[in-house]
Amino acid sequence: MRIALLGGTGDIGEGLALRFARDTDHELLIGSRDPEKARDAVEGYEERLADVGASGDLKGFANEMAADRADVVLLSVPPYYAGDTVEAVADKLDSDTILVTPAVGMKGDEDGMHYHPPGTGSVTELVAQRAPDDVSVVGAFHNLAAGKLADLSTAFDLDTLVVADDADAKARVRQLADEIEGLRALDAGPLANAAEVESVTPLVINIAKHNDDMHDVGVKWI
Amino acid sequence: MRIALLGGTGDIGEGLALRFARDTDHELLIGSRDPEKARDAVEGYEERLADVGASGDLKGFANEMAADRADVVLLSVPPYYAGDTVEAVADKLDSDTILVTPAVGMKGDEDGMHYHPPGTGSVTELVAQRAPDDVSVVGAFHNLAAGKLADLSTAFDLDTLVVADDADAKARVRQLADEIEGLRALDAGPLANAAEVESVTPLVINIAKHNDDMHDVGVKWI
Repeated sequence: MRIALLGGTGDIGEGLALRFARDTDHELLIGSRDPEKARDAVEGYEERLADVGASGDLKGFANEMAADRADVVLLSVPPYYAGDTVEAVADKLDSDTILVTPAVGMKGDEDGMHYHPPGTGSVTELVAQRAPDDVSVVGAFHNLAAGKLADLSTAFDLDTLVVADDADAKARVRQLADEIEGLRALDAGPLANAAEVESVTPLVINIAKHNDDMHDVGVKWI
Repeated sequence: MRIALLGGTGDIGEGLALRFARDTDHELLIGSRDPEKARDAVEGYEERLADVGASGDLKGFANEMAADRADVVLLSVPPYYAGDTVEAVADKLDSDTILVTPAVGMKGDEDGMHYHPPGTGSVTELVAQRAPDDVSVVGAFHNLAAGKLADLSTAFDLDTLVVADDADAKARVRQLADEIEGLRALDAGPLANAAEVESVTPLVINIAKHNDDMHDVGVKWI
């Protein structure tokens, strides 16, 4: 499978690129608005994979080209770019493409981080609204700490929650997430349930802040 | 310590009464609007404790009397009664009383359960607003499945998140929660962070609905 990671040069994109590269045989298309930046990121990822005796099938592209070639397009961009990034690549997506969004709207104040969704109710639903009608949108990978994901010396046992209206697309993304070692994908229902999934992200940040010896907090549903 | 469980005859109150009775030496004052109903509930709890070879110090009272005698008052009532219950017992609370609220506002539709907070931002903050100024309010026990809690044949390994503005009150409630076997209390910050804690409750219900073999879903932060 070909997986494009748009905005795949930083934050959650970095960790997913490294984990997919190490744990799966999928072809990974690292996207950036600047293709040179994407190719530089790929070089860095290949070095870090080599450091742990691993390798992967990684290439750097402009976001549009990565999206055009991919079966699954993962929008690993900050939430305020999510809608615009979808529109920038919209004519490269078709009914066979699955668009995956991990972005969460948050704002911080002196008390901690708070969930701050857009008017659509969630970033996941905003992406669905901005995507072409025939493209299946799946919310996943929302609550994973970027630092833990990108540190290949760390093994983990974590869950990610998947929301989608299209059952086939949801099943494919759950399968894909399950291929990452130590990650279990659970079904949280349709896109309308995305807000409660997204709001776990500010919560894990607050838990990390207020409890000694807890960093890059993740979650296991039991 | 004397712990009053207002509305302690059903739902989360039942489970907390049984677990506190089995696992601690605290005096448990089961409250209800109808004291007869509270005494009946205590009889039932004592039988269920005896069934597992346990016992506890349980007594039934009207809510007001339970609140009057307690060091910690736990509001195990439905969210839409939380504010009124606080006002009904307000003159029985003093600056030594800690008021604990586990209630969550939710509404369900065909997609699943959704977080539905009051205008104050969370039920926890609504309780704080309605409580006398000198009473410390702590949010805790929000995300525990009532069924799992009330089933004494079930061992668990779960977390509960605690929010409060008063550090001493928070520490005391964390310690109290830690006394329940298999329960770990984590700090999620001040009352202003309660919304993200409460919104985990509809989420665990949605996870239970959409995943085979998952019932009474709980959470572990790792």
